[in-house]
Amino acid sequence: MATPETFVDLGFARVDTDRRRRCGIPEVVFAEGKTPEEVLAIGRTILANDPVLLITRASAAHYEMFAAEVPTARWHPRARCITAEAQPLPKMTGTVGVVCAGTSDLPVAEEAAITLDIFGNRVERVTDVGVAGLHRLLAERERLEACNVLIVVAGMEGALPSVVAGLVSKPVIAVPTSIGYGASFGGVAALLGMLTSCGSGVTVVNIDNGFGAAYAATQINRLLHTASAVRSAES
Amino acid sequence: MATPETFVDLGFARVDTDRRRRCGIPEVVFAEGKTPEEVLAIGRTILANDPVLLITRASAAHYEMFAAEVPTARWHPRARCITAEAQPLPKMTGTVGVVCAGTSDLPVAEEAAITLDIFGNRVERVTDVGVAGLHRLLAERERLEACNVLIVVAGMEGALPSVVAGLVSKPVIAVPTSIGYGASFGGVAALLGMLTSCGSGVTVVNIDNGFGAAYAATQINRLLHTASAVRSAES
Amino acid sequence: MATPETFVDLGFARVDTDRRRRCGIPEVVFAEGKTPEEVLAIGRTILANDPVLLITRASAAHYEMFAAEVPTARWHPRARCITAEAQPLPKMTGTVGVVCAGTSDLPVAEEAAITLDIFGNRVERVTDVGVAGLHRLLAERERLEACNVLIVVAGMEGALPSVVAGLVSKPVIAVPTSIGYGASFGGVAALLGMLTSCGSGVTVVNIDNGFGAAYAATQINRLLHTASAVRSAES
Amino acid sequence: MATPETFVDLGFARVDTDRRRRCGIPEVVFAEGKTPEEVLAIGRTILANDPVLLITRASAAHYEMFAAEVPTARWHPRARCITAEAQPLPKMTGTVGVVCAGTSDLPVAEEAAITLDIFGNRVERVTDVGVAGLHRLLAERERLEACNVLIVVAGMEGALPSVVAGLVSKPVIAVPTSIGYGASFGGVAALLGMLTSCGSGVTVVNIDNGFGAAYAATQINRLLHTASAVRSAES
Amino acid sequence: MATPETFVDLGFARVDTDRRRRCGIPEVVFAEGKTPEEVLAIGRTILANDPVLLITRASAAHYEMFAAEVPTARWHPRARCITAEAQPLPKMTGTVGVVCAGTSDLPVAEEAAITLDIFGNRVERVTDVGVAGLHRLLAERERLEACNVLIVVAGMEGALPSVVAGLVSKPVIAVPTSIGYGASFGGVAALLGMLTSCGSGVTVVNIDNGFGAAYAATQINRLLHTASAVRSAES
Amino acid sequence: MATPETFVDLGFARVDTDRRRRCGIPEVVFAEGKTPEEVLAIGRTILANDPVLLITRASAAHYEMFAAEVPTARWHPRARCITAEAQPLPKMTGTVGVVCAGTSDLPVAEEAAITLDIFGNRVERVTDVGVAGLHRLLAERERLEACNVLIVVAGMEGALPSVVAGLVSKPVIAVPTSIGYGASFGGVAALLGMLTSCGSGVTVVNIDNGFGAAYAATQINRLLHTASAVRSAES
Amino acid sequence: MATPETFVDLGFARVDTDRRRRCGIPEVVFAEGKTPEEVLAIGRTILANDPVLLITRASAAHYEMFAAEVPTARWHPRARCITAEAQPLPKMTGTVGVVCAGTSDLPVAEEAAITLDIFGNRVERVTDVGVAGLHRLLAERERLEACNVLIVVAGMEGALPSVVAGLVSKPVIAVPTSIGYGASFGGVAALLGMLTSCGSGVTVVNIDNGFGAAYAATQINRLLHTASAVRSAES
Amino acid sequence: MATPETFVDLGFARVDTDRRRRCGIPEVVFAEGKTPEEVLAIGRTILANDPVLLITRASAAHYEMFAAEVPTARWHPRARCITAEAQPLPKMTGTVGVVCAGTSDLPVAEEAAITLDIFGNRVERVTDVGVAGLHRLLAERERLEACNVLIVVAGMEGALPSVVAGLVSKPVIAVPTSIGYGASFGGVAALLGMLTSCGSGVTVVNIDNGFGAAYAATQINRLLHTASAVRSAES
Repeated sequence: MATPETFVDLGFARVDTDRRRRCGIPEVVFAEGKTPEEVLAIGRTILANDPVLLITRASAAHYEMFAAEVPTARWHPRARCITAEAQPLPKMTGTVGVVCAGTSDLPVAEEAAITLDIFGNRVERVTDVGVAGLHRLLAERERLEACNVLIVVAGMEGALPSVVAGLVSKPVIAVPTSIGYGASFGGVAALLGMLTSCGSGVTVVNIDNGFGAAYAATQINRLLHTASAVRSAES
Repeated sequence: MATPETFVDLGFARVDTDRRRRCGIPEVVFAEGKTPEEVLAIGRTILANDPVLLITRASAAHYEMFAAEVPTARWHPRARCITAEAQPLPKMTGTVGVVCAGTSDLPVAEEAAITLDIFGNRVERVTDVGVAGLHRLLAERERLEACNVLIVVAGMEGALPSVVAGLVSKPVIAVPTSIGYGASFGGVAALLGMLTSCGSGVTVVNIDNGFGAAYAATQINRLLHTASAVRSAES
Repeated sequence: MATPETFVDLGFARVDTDRRRRCGIPEVVFAEGKTPEEVLAIGRTILANDPVLLITRASAAHYEMFAAEVPTARWHPRARCITAEAQPLPKMTGTVGVVCAGTSDLPVAEEAAITLDIFGNRVERVTDVGVAGLHRLLAERERLEACNVLIVVAGMEGALPSVVAGLVSKPVIAVPTSIGYGASFGGVAALLGMLTSCGSGVTVVNIDNGFGAAYAATQINRLLHTASAVRSAES
Repeated sequence: MATPETFVDLGFARVDTDRRRRCGIPEVVFAEGKTPEEVLAIGRTILANDPVLLITRASAAHYEMFAAEVPTARWHPRARCITAEAQPLPKMTGTVGVVCAGTSDLPVAEEAAITLDIFGNRVERVTDVGVAGLHRLLAERERLEACNVLIVVAGMEGALPSVVAGLVSKPVIAVPTSIGYGASFGGVAALLGMLTSCGSGVTVVNIDNGFGAAYAATQINRLLHTASAVRSAES
Repeated sequence: MATPETFVDLGFARVDTDRRRRCGIPEVVFAEGKTPEEVLAIGRTILANDPVLLITRASAAHYEMFAAEVPTARWHPRARCITAEAQPLPKMTGTVGVVCAGTSDLPVAEEAAITLDIFGNRVERVTDVGVAGLHRLLAERERLEACNVLIVVAGMEGALPSVVAGLVSKPVIAVPTSIGYGASFGGVAALLGMLTSCGSGVTVVNIDNGFGAAYAATQINRLLHTASAVRSAES
Repeated sequence: MATPETFVDLGFARVDTDRRRRCGIPEVVFAEGKTPEEVLAIGRTILANDPVLLITRASAAHYEMFAAEVPTARWHPRARCITAEAQPLPKMTGTVGVVCAGTSDLPVAEEAAITLDIFGNRVERVTDVGVAGLHRLLAERERLEACNVLIVVAGMEGALPSVVAGLVSKPVIAVPTSIGYGASFGGVAALLGMLTSCGSGVTVVNIDNGFGAAYAATQINRLLHTASAVRSAES
Repeated sequence: MATPETFVDLGFARVDTDRRRRCGIPEVVFAEGKTPEEVLAIGRTILANDPVLLITRASAAHYEMFAAEVPTARWHPRARCITAEAQPLPKMTGTVGVVCAGTSDLPVAEEAAITLDIFGNRVERVTDVGVAGLHRLLAERERLEACNVLIVVAGMEGALPSVVAGLVSKPVIAVPTSIGYGASFGGVAALLGMLTSCGSGVTVVNIDNGFGAAYAATQINRLLHTASAVRSAES
Repeated sequence: MATPETFVDLGFARVDTDRRRRCGIPEVVFAEGKTPEEVLAIGRTILANDPVLLITRASAAHYEMFAAEVPTARWHPRARCITAEAQPLPKMTGTVGVVCAGTSDLPVAEEAAITLDIFGNRVERVTDVGVAGLHRLLAERERLEACNVLIVVAGMEGALPSVVAGLVSKPVIAVPTSIGYGASFGGVAALLGMLTSCGSGVTVVNIDNGFGAAYAATQINRLLHTASAVRSAES
């Protein structure tokens, strides 16, 4: 099986340099709980192998140390992400929609959108269409149906994915957010609501995990892109 | 304050015969955890003071013993209720809507509807309008708006009250049901969803508590009826 | 159904300018999780359509930016609310009571009272009448019965709504607060206590949701006011 | 310290025959999870040392095998207890009150009352005085104050101990019951309500643990009895 | 928007006959909590519009009444499903893998496999490859990579999806099962494990929701099939 | 019943000046969630009626404002209490033991000890006798048995009350503390351990509620003191 | 790495025939959730490779079908285990103690003891030594210290492992049981108590998992046995 | 039994100076919740009896006061430990492995490693071998098998111990960490995953309890060392 060359051992971390070959998407750095020095060392190792780098859950301190060495680094404060692109990945043909229930859910939605973008997806943002004013969502139905996959981000009761899944035919990946108070229990109400959704085909990721939803959406979009690409080549 | 005559002491129970005067609605029997003999004895005491009787969470065994003595007793198996009306209360002017997300939620919705009926409300039933097929609900918007109060019954993610509250201007009382499995946790997902609803003005009762919702709706409807009645009398 | 004119798209938010027509009460801003700039932009949009504005869960920073542009803005620090009234709504005939178990529950009770006031309700405040010294509550029984609706705010074990609902005939909307420690679990004990209340007709809103209770109470009071208004007009 | 003679080893159980000397109250058998044979063997061993025996959480099967050998055995089906008294303990001077919120809470209240009785306490039962009809409780205030200790049994929201503790000066031991449904979570709502009681001095035992409350009440009553007995002897 | 003809109102249910047009997949019946009569009536209505029918969470009683009227009905006892195919849907080109951690997880895996099959997917079953004997999984790596989508079913600690997601490049839909005891809390341990998976791109459905996972996988597979079909037509 | 003179209405608080007559112990101030001004106003009102005052959960800010007006005020930082004694209550005859599992539990134990002291109890402190080094506890057995009541304070797994209750014959009031980490869940592990104690007669108060335990212990000790006092008077 | 010969694929199960080589202990069958036919087929496959077989969580139905084919099968009803020994494993030198808090915990303790026995350990059983009567445990201190490892089984508050770990120097593996009611929450109280034990070195397995504790104890005992065996061989 | 000389009473703490004799390992100080003065006083007492001292959960403030008096003190900031060795314990023959899933889990792994080291164990660290990149773990299989015991530290879904236990024959002690967000619930997901592990023989300690795991591992390693030492002496 895998040989030692498939990872780089930094002592405090083993960077999985085999991931792009195995899983099709480059390794990503989750910054929370790591020092700026560690994030820099891991990021440098990835960039030596891959053209693009994504660092999630990053603080300004992470960014400052990182940007001092990597001039292409960009800081996305609302999404708490750092990106660096030696050479951007070519855009795939299909689009991924990022639908967001309320303004307060935007940090999670943006984490998803930034992730989608750096992985080569086209992104369609549909913001503040919570179910308490349904006409705002119904007005966007066609834009939603035109996407290949939909990421639906919502806090509080998390009802939006159920409604979206009942309106369109595309896969819906639901992201509960920790937005809310009291009985929202830091996103648990939204999480349970999405898991028990009466909307068929809704799948769910962890609370506030915009990245994970975008990763899964990229896997789907990439499969479709490959099929289309083959088709174009053949025709 | 209250004198001993305001209740009847049966040894195992003190029947609150003062409730109608104090709260406007007769005492009700919650049968679960009581023997058929106890239910009969309490029910008999209430009927001696009030023209109508409601027994909730009743089993067939409760009904059989009760019906043997009280010929006007009726059994509502889906709602698990027994009713007895020596003389039905006159119907109030306004209507209460009972909106139900799915077929499996019907037992709870029926408990609400039976309770509303015996307390003198007109009832409008709107069944199986869950948010996964939103057009079924939108088709009923006018019937909903025509009610004074809406009781909205839903299990699973409990999203229906949020959507209803955003469509109509009337008070919405949400009833979570224990319908569902896995992460619905016996109605907890629906309960949390309703408590954290983004639909303003939604109030919530206990899981499967169709009776409680109907009691609260009756209080509101009765206030309105009284105002209207006064108006009629004056004009 | 709804046409695009029914909301204003600010990019990060779609302000529901159709809400007053649909639901009878103007849109409200929930400030938590929004920047002062966002709150100002949303508030400005609402004030362009509606005579009054309520901003809940606001910080001093939200207020400062807002007040710099809107001279009628008022800051209610205990309730964490900002209000602005181009022209106050006319007061309705009925009164809503705000009953509060302890001094520590006052912030939530005040959020309810401020909300009631700006929506045109008359407010009766009854403070610090927790069940451990019952005579304090019994002394207020007549004031409570004179209200159309009662909002009952309590933390810790949340027993007050059960007792109030047993004393008066009016609808009781219970608000659990996060006051307490240990097994109060941030308001969960009070929430569960209110949901399982033996007091019939108690409905419940989310922990600390004084606004939500006031919104629901306004819906009820408005229905009664309309009936009375019609009556006055007719007589 | 303790020597081997302080217990009897039956192989599957070590009967603590030293308990009465150490703790002042004889060993008791908790039957749940034990076979009728085991309960009989343990009970027989205790009766060889002590004049009275209490078996809690017993089923009819436990009783049948036990009664076949022990003629003084009595079966208390509602309380699920078996008692056997070779010679009843002399009654102590003080009284313990057992206050019960609703009819459905009676099994737990009876377990407490049976336990109190066999341990030599005088018992005062006050039944069905839940807080939704407060006048029923207020009518009993003097009987409650006349007791040395009060055991207060309640399910659902468990508010009764808070109210009782505010009315009388005696120690209140609260017993939550598993009575209720939905958000009562098998007694958790009542348990949390009692733990967070605003009524000072309320102490709490496990859900449905009528026995434990009675044991604690006996310890207090016994201390008082001893003081009184000494006084009588001296005078 | 939708007109009344888009559903059939049976009184107790509104069958969504518009779903296939809107969402691409026919309406399905969830039998739990419905009577055999209700299931039959709903199923009959769907079959009048669609060539295939799936009934999940069905009991033998549901099947018996249904099969008496619908001769093509088939009973899948382990999966608790009834299927009926007037004319099977044509098979799509791609394959969906159903990977199962242990023998006890088979009922959920079979619900997924039956659902996939009736919706026109080719299915590859990989059974009993839990992570405690990793070589069993590694031996199947190529079969897994050859699928378009993977449904991974596991109870207990639910670690299998994390490991699979790290080995292959295809989307992984994780299904926690209620298999286990003690701290598995009816599937909660597996659910939390999957939601917090370190394997990127894992999305999750409700505990025991084999159907939901299969529905989502079908949506993905259908998109790919359409792309391929277009390609074939073009070439 | 109670007349208006039984409390003083400060607007934000109704001070229960009837409590000493009704419950035998003066009103106490819980400072958390109240401003220093409010605490001062309430404390001043109580001191106008009662010779001693206890303020719990107080911060240094509360103390500073209070001490500026009340020269007898004392600050107990570890217990977070303020006391003021115009004239200390006479000491009762019996002693209450405060047993503490570990050094980290001392703040809660001290809150209990300060409360006991100001209410007129003699206090015996036994510190750091956790069950992991049992000989430390066994060495104190006689001191424990000599008390009238025992308050046992423990965090982590909360096993100490079970062991103490098995060693001595006196009532044990258990206080779980929030000391611990991880699966102690802020005191929940200790709370559950104490509620399910195999040590008969253990009663429990809220997490960190040293005050409540001391209040209950005072009620018991006061009953015993009264009996002894009567005895002395009689002899 | 591992080749296909390391497991046998039965279709519904892949029997890990490589486990004894890899992990030193033969594969075991967990019967719950498997049909008697499946258990028999898996058991037969294991016995073809290993001299002994253990089936846990077995019902009488499992045993009957199994014993019909395997004459050496034995049924241990209290432990719910089936064992079959073509040739018993030779006994190791050291002993494992199984300490049990109460009679009701015996099924779990027996599952541990049966497992230890068939894996070649000598077993010392110490039963009913719960902490409420500490002298029963202290009397056994030397027997406990003489073991290599101790498995300590307890329900309710699960305090026994803390006390044992403080008395002896040997590794303690704690097994919480589901024995108890109310706040024991099916073993959660015991589990949390053991995880937060103040007794250093206590490790914990799942609720009721006597097997798992015995497996871990066997691993330790086997290491020691090997060391001793080498020593004997060398001397 | 134990005499007073077996502990030193510092007033706020009773230092268990008998622990090394009773349990084989010196007393340790848990600094959280203690003042620097208290930690110093306890540490000084232990060092008067034992050659080495370990202080866990220490802050820099604890270290500063301690180091001012004890020159051999060392500060391990990542592990939050202080150590002091008057004379290091001789190293035992066997090795304990500390396996760590991710970089963020290092603080807990280091607490384990520091503890192991000061107690005389040789330590093998294997870092960042989470199951999402399995080849990193498989590359270390031989190093793992060469250890006597393995401590496996993981957050998020906590799957690593299951996989390790299936690969090697040595006892696995699992340590869940609080690393993660959302549904990891501060380590609960990892804890439940480890408790329900399909990997036989995994035992578990509290969340983030690296110390506890190292203590248990030391107990096992010490038993083995003693056996080996005896063997060496004999040969």
